[in-house]
Amino acid sequence: MWFQREITLRPRPRGFHLVTREVVEAVPELREVRVGLAHLFIRHTSASLTLNENASPDVRRDFETWFSRAVPEDLAWEHALEGPDDMPAHIKASLLGPSLTLPIADGHLALGTWQGVYLCEHRDHGGPRRLLLTVQGD
Amino acid sequence: MWFQREITLRPRPRGFHLVTREVVEAVPELREVRVGLAHLFIRHTSASLTLNENASPDVRRDFETWFSRAVPEDLAWEHALEGPDDMPAHIKASLLGPSLTLPIADGHLALGTWQGVYLCEHRDHGGPRRLLLTVQGD
Amino acid sequence: MWFQREITLRPRPRGFHLVTREVVEAVPELREVRVGLAHLFIRHTSASLTLNENASPDVRRDFETWFSRAVPEDLAWEHALEGPDDMPAHIKASLLGPSLTLPIADGHLALGTWQGVYLCEHRDHGGPRRLLLTVQGD
Repeated sequence: MWFQREITLRPRPRGFHLVTREVVEAVPELREVRVGLAHLFIRHTSASLTLNENASPDVRRDFETWFSRAVPEDLAWEHALEGPDDMPAHIKASLLGPSLTLPIADGHLALGTWQGVYLCEHRDHGGPRRLLLTVQGD
Repeated sequence: MWFQREITLRPRPRGFHLVTREVVEAVPELREVRVGLAHLFIRHTSASLTLNENASPDVRRDFETWFSRAVPEDLAWEHALEGPDDMPAHIKASLLGPSLTLPIADGHLALGTWQGVYLCEHRDHGGPRRLLLTVQGD
Repeated sequence: MWFQREITLRPRPRGFHLVTREVVEAVPELREVRVGLAHLFIRHTSASLTLNENASPDVRRDFETWFSRAVPEDLAWEHALEGPDDMPAHIKASLLGPSLTLPIADGHLALGTWQGVYLCEHRDHGGPRRLLLTVQGD
């Protein structure tokens, strides 16, 4: 069984945003999968996806603090035409990656208690973000 | 063909630990797969999985050195209630990622000669770690 | 439907190299897949794969600048026998990861407009790099 659907996430401010519910609700077909995998793929190079703590908003703020410190805007970037937030956004996107592959068990994403899906918006004004969701399983 | 099993890795000290054999032995069903993929997923947000050099223990110690320097405990973390090692653990977990997808060929993980699976324990006292293994193939 | 093939990429200088076309042309079987996933796996621990901007070469040069600054050669690495570029190469390889899982839709990789596959060569003289490509789908 294969299933694929594109969704668009509304624009978010720069930072890390919990989107687990939005993603899961977009693929109700998940419920019919006994064992399988869900592949979440972002079709952009300046935003990314990761899995992390789903409870405290301060964790997500600390993510933004660390990543913006680790990949500063004021390096002597060659690629600077699209603004100082652009090249750091590309680096951050690759550090975190464009996709998540998540296990499905008995009709649910088999995440740990504290795991949630983050949309990582690395641009100051990133706009809507397109995700391609691919579900497969038995 | 789909196969899924949860395993629990015993507690390890903070650092990087080679667990390839433990993981492979947990899914003997691998041997029946001609071509496929094995998905290894850690159900935690302060430990992670990566693939790297399987020979020299000094490589794994250098991993710990670099990651603890790159994500220091003494930043002004907002999320500090669970101890100074907690927030750095979350960041490191996302830098390395919660899963590995590994190719299977002729009943074996088709890793390169020097590749091994690391359990990356980012907490000082992380406890046992649960992995969900999903194998699919032909 | 499952399909697997190993390819060898010719030696590249240290840095980030766009290889999307090479990879896609190696698996013409992709065209027969309506919905599926392509798994690209590098069988090395000092080179990696990532997805990022496919247009401006300056983006790829900035990647090299940032990664070589973030993981410097002159740290007090324990694992230094294979040269000063070796241990940083291992760290960079894990930061970016050994594999990409990419969605397939209607016989094509369903990448965003600006997304391309990078071979990330972290050694000064890395040599040829072996990739195992696994395609599955409907």
